[in-house]
Amino acid sequence: VNFASDNVFGIHPRIIEALNTANAGTAVSYGGDDWTRRAEQRLSEVFERDVTAFLVVTGTAANALALSTMAPSYGAVLCHADAHVMVDECGAPELFTGGAKLIGLNEPGGKITAKTIERTLDGFIRGEHDAKPAAISITQASEFGTVYSPSEIKSISEVARGRKMRLHMDGARFANALVSLAATPAELTWKAGVDAMSFGATKNGAMALEAVIFFDSELAEDFTYRRMRAGQLLSKGRFLGAQMLAYLDGDLWLDNARYANAMAQRLAKGLAGAAKVRLPLPTQANEVFAIIPQTLHGELAAAGVVYHQWPGEGPGTDRVGPGEILVRFVTSYLTHPDDVDRLAELMG
Amino acid sequence: VNFASDNVFGIHPRIIEALNTANAGTAVSYGGDDWTRRAEQRLSEVFERDVTAFLVVTGTAANALALSTMAPSYGAVLCHADAHVMVDECGAPELFTGGAKLIGLNEPGGKITAKTIERTLDGFIRGEHDAKPAAISITQASEFGTVYSPSEIKSISEVARGRKMRLHMDGARFANALVSLAATPAELTWKAGVDAMSFGATKNGAMALEAVIFFDSELAEDFTYRRMRAGQLLSKGRFLGAQMLAYLDGDLWLDNARYANAMAQRLAKGLAGAAKVRLPLPTQANEVFAIIPQTLHGELAAAGVVYHQWPGEGPGTDRVGPGEILVRFVTSYLTHPDDVDRLAELMG
Amino acid sequence: VNFASDNVFGIHPRIIEALNTANAGTAVSYGGDDWTRRAEQRLSEVFERDVTAFLVVTGTAANALALSTMAPSYGAVLCHADAHVMVDECGAPELFTGGAKLIGLNEPGGKITAKTIERTLDGFIRGEHDAKPAAISITQASEFGTVYSPSEIKSISEVARGRKMRLHMDGARFANALVSLAATPAELTWKAGVDAMSFGATKNGAMALEAVIFFDSELAEDFTYRRMRAGQLLSKGRFLGAQMLAYLDGDLWLDNARYANAMAQRLAKGLAGAAKVRLPLPTQANEVFAIIPQTLHGELAAAGVVYHQWPGEGPGTDRVGPGEILVRFVTSYLTHPDDVDRLAELMG
Amino acid sequence: VNFASDNVFGIHPRIIEALNTANAGTAVSYGGDDWTRRAEQRLSEVFERDVTAFLVVTGTAANALALSTMAPSYGAVLCHADAHVMVDECGAPELFTGGAKLIGLNEPGGKITAKTIERTLDGFIRGEHDAKPAAISITQASEFGTVYSPSEIKSISEVARGRKMRLHMDGARFANALVSLAATPAELTWKAGVDAMSFGATKNGAMALEAVIFFDSELAEDFTYRRMRAGQLLSKGRFLGAQMLAYLDGDLWLDNARYANAMAQRLAKGLAGAAKVRLPLPTQANEVFAIIPQTLHGELAAAGVVYHQWPGEGPGTDRVGPGEILVRFVTSYLTHPDDVDRLAELMG
Repeated sequence: VNFASDNVFGIHPRIIEALNTANAGTAVSYGGDDWTRRAEQRLSEVFERDVTAFLVVTGTAANALALSTMAPSYGAVLCHADAHVMVDECGAPELFTGGAKLIGLNEPGGKITAKTIERTLDGFIRGEHDAKPAAISITQASEFGTVYSPSEIKSISEVARGRKMRLHMDGARFANALVSLAATPAELTWKAGVDAMSFGATKNGAMALEAVIFFDSELAEDFTYRRMRAGQLLSKGRFLGAQMLAYLDGDLWLDNARYANAMAQRLAKGLAGAAKVRLPLPTQANEVFAIIPQTLHGELAAAGVVYHQWPGEGPGTDRVGPGEILVRFVTSYLTHPDDVDRLAELMG
Repeated sequence: VNFASDNVFGIHPRIIEALNTANAGTAVSYGGDDWTRRAEQRLSEVFERDVTAFLVVTGTAANALALSTMAPSYGAVLCHADAHVMVDECGAPELFTGGAKLIGLNEPGGKITAKTIERTLDGFIRGEHDAKPAAISITQASEFGTVYSPSEIKSISEVARGRKMRLHMDGARFANALVSLAATPAELTWKAGVDAMSFGATKNGAMALEAVIFFDSELAEDFTYRRMRAGQLLSKGRFLGAQMLAYLDGDLWLDNARYANAMAQRLAKGLAGAAKVRLPLPTQANEVFAIIPQTLHGELAAAGVVYHQWPGEGPGTDRVGPGEILVRFVTSYLTHPDDVDRLAELMG
Repeated sequence: VNFASDNVFGIHPRIIEALNTANAGTAVSYGGDDWTRRAEQRLSEVFERDVTAFLVVTGTAANALALSTMAPSYGAVLCHADAHVMVDECGAPELFTGGAKLIGLNEPGGKITAKTIERTLDGFIRGEHDAKPAAISITQASEFGTVYSPSEIKSISEVARGRKMRLHMDGARFANALVSLAATPAELTWKAGVDAMSFGATKNGAMALEAVIFFDSELAEDFTYRRMRAGQLLSKGRFLGAQMLAYLDGDLWLDNARYANAMAQRLAKGLAGAAKVRLPLPTQANEVFAIIPQTLHGELAAAGVVYHQWPGEGPGTDRVGPGEILVRFVTSYLTHPDDVDRLAELMG
Repeated sequence: VNFASDNVFGIHPRIIEALNTANAGTAVSYGGDDWTRRAEQRLSEVFERDVTAFLVVTGTAANALALSTMAPSYGAVLCHADAHVMVDECGAPELFTGGAKLIGLNEPGGKITAKTIERTLDGFIRGEHDAKPAAISITQASEFGTVYSPSEIKSISEVARGRKMRLHMDGARFANALVSLAATPAELTWKAGVDAMSFGATKNGAMALEAVIFFDSELAEDFTYRRMRAGQLLSKGRFLGAQMLAYLDGDLWLDNARYANAMAQRLAKGLAGAAKVRLPLPTQANEVFAIIPQTLHGELAAAGVVYHQWPGEGPGTDRVGPGEILVRFVTSYLTHPDDVDRLAELMG
């Protein structure tokens, strides 16, 4: 019964089958192969316009490389104080940007707002003594399983536009946000003013695959150099292309996300009446955060439930109290409903 | 009537005289000269032990270079949220460390405490997903003109020691703190557990001069490479050495700081009864922060008083209210008592 | 008929089978899984001593990350002028070291010698005006398919030791060198004084897999941070571990390399009598470099032979003349003998 | 009798006098002062067009910061193999560019040629596997005291233009080249296609002063951030501005250079008939390189002559032979003709 993360599960059968199929014969190396070319084209179709897409291996690389095209070494990147780029990547954005400064905004719900961004930027009155505001990064779905609506994104992108900054979206769980909002990929990204995104596939069924997608092609210039230099250009690139094709084919990515989200909803409902458990946030994607008694933590562990305790006092206005802890449950395309029900029961 | 900063004033007569004197004849270049050697020795005397000292030109360079010996590129540096290294150096520490992450702690009074540092470090439970806690940086006197007592410093250095981290002191206004506390240089630094410091002279009468001083000689290894690579090694190095000798000679540095502090005290006293003015913090060095009505701001400007409005809502528990602003007045070894009295009167 | 590179071929059947097998069930993410642990142990067995090994995805990342543990940002790394780290990685070593300076030595045969290294280091007489000599990097087998004998490596490591420098080996084609020399992994590495190596598997049958192996465990400290920060820590890490286990299992890696080397020998022999073709170097691994007439180049292309033209005037003393070009043929565990014979015939 | 470098001499009387004069009263800090503004304007007059100029403290900083505006982290900078940026700055260009790769071209006479640059760039056929050619840097006067004619510079800038690269000039001894060629500042720079330069003053009479001058204003954008972040923005900036004003005033800079060059000519003539001494290059600025017997080296030292032995086998076609060494003599605005004559006599 593993709710630790969506990445504790393996590769979706259709994706690993694609790897097996792509293994025949020779192929041009370093991304010059046919699978990669087709995968990049498919992404343009998915986003309903020409995009420039680059396949890489990890989400950390995708985020940090995308930000490196937006923020110079003396630039500032505004993001949520709990954003993956801020607290989970060991400074990869700093490495790939050459030392840009990430500024974390502390807002409830795991999401940043145009208003707070504006207020923060208004404080940049020292000229070159401050870093230069260069980019904003949002996470869709957020680290706390909440989602940004298209209009929320648009508000943020308008701030960015007005200040000559760029907008990046960390879409490690983009599919989960997409099906949650019943929006199109275009509506959640370039139509709302996103300049570039990290398009995640690993957490949603791939082996190791993310795409950096540019809606502003100017940012994409020289990206091949950045990817190579980062050690993210696979010599046997066809195996990234093949993963992406299978991921998108027949809407596998959307089906996987829909299923995972449904499991999270099932869990949230199951916990609704649990006396000892409080959910500080609505469940909008495939993550359920809960404030639980320390004692329950021990019982769940004893019952073999695997999940993560989370640092901090909680992402909402309902905070962790004495004797309590914050925990996270993540569901996946492979999460079994019976496991969800059993977990709800154990916590009930 | 200029209270904008201590650096709006020029070079102390005894220091510029030293520059004139040092100008005779030839000297070995790149710091191999006699003035530099003697200056480094004098610093050992001042600190009552062998120190390794390196002269550089700016405080930003001193801080960033010092931190680069303590924090690897994947390291974290804890400091106050308003620290100079955090908000006034345009990312110089990130540049010279290769992208270390500065983590700003938001505490009243401009000072960080062992307790908050501990609590923050306790949140580093993600292993390599987080940056590695490497250093703590404190500012003495702080950016808000408050000072750390030796025992406060010791508490912080004990946290550092316990976590295998290093302690850096930004001493851009070290002299002001020193005379304020009536402590010795040794007591405020290595005896309290400081590993390296930026020893400022520019704000206190020099032309352009700071020293990076290592109490832990291991950190000093290879520092000559770092300084050269940073473009901080002067070819005509004698003019840094000569400044430092004059700065320390006859306790000029202490006299200058004592005078500047006295002027700040005089101003604080003068403002004590002013109805429209609130001082959010005690005056411990040569800076006075005040919360004043926006209207008064206009009057002062009209009267020709020069000073800085400060971003944020104030460094203390008494916050900036509607129609109010935060302002900073800095005094110097050249500030005239009449100007102080006139300012107090204007604000009274 | 593809001789462009060993990476135009796919994944060895036993390795992709291992991926399929490892896909069952859940596993701890980010390298905490059982496959990874066992792979790391197996590497210790292979090298006949405790090693610290870290799995990454590309050779460029392996090399650059390994060098980042040896050379500080102000350090110098000596390598061959044609080394992969010098001319094929778009500055990845500069990125991960924070700007260390690679110094390329131009020696025939693709290998550097202790003597040239010594002579180069003797020129470092400017102290901190020069970068600080920190590491030496050799490629085994070299970029030109030649191999370093254990005694050649030992001579180089003695220079490194004597100057307090470290020795890195780029082992992208380590297996090919190993079987060519009939040496043990230990003899070619730590017994000869190598401090850390990039242990390649991708070119020899894996999908995307290299290991950074430390013989000096001190260098390995904090490597987990470096790998994470570089975006090289896979969340579904089991798929790296599984590749490595299959690669080493039953000496698959050695068999693959032996076969590839035999194909290169077969080609070299086939070309021995070819009037228009000169081989500037002995064939010691799985690469054959040849100087051929420009006209033959067109004929081979017309016949559907795929290979790379190589920049420069040749790796040996026999140089490219007017109307001639340098070309490279690489053989693999999948190269067919008939294809080799056909190529030899076309060139005969 | 000191011929070690032009920087062993102090500050020209008129420049130190300017420092004394500028010391009165208060001034806006961080370069907002009147001296700095006027100095920047004067440079536009000197170059006969609007330039964007920034004052910094060292030549290493000037060069590295200028290059950081031209070369991205994944870029390549072509320069002479003996260029100051390549071998004397401990990797400062790598630091400030974020790891760009400097490629040193080995040509006689200390100068690079359009032809060699072209041939080198023709070898960049690997796309993103190579660094991206971004900038060319030339030194005027060169490290070996030779000068580039306007037409030589134009040839190089045409290569740069044709490849979308930028041209940087390290003008640490720009004044010496200028008077040597009897050209105007404009003819040697923007009229010949130079995009940005480091305009040196320290070696020619200032205390510590260089300007980064942009002829292409696009490159200058954000330079204030770069300078601040590098720790090169002086708080008491007036003392840089005052130096520059005095340096340019009444053509002091040209007079100083003319005098220094004349002293070098005097020395070269004095050595013309010396049996044991060979000058491998013509004397075009204020440096004289000589190949001398090792025995003479001892005699000169014994006579109290100070100068540098130089690494390498000589900058010209006439190479250092057995029992010989290469030495450098530098003259300055303060070099006494009697000292020159005595040196020539000692070597005769």
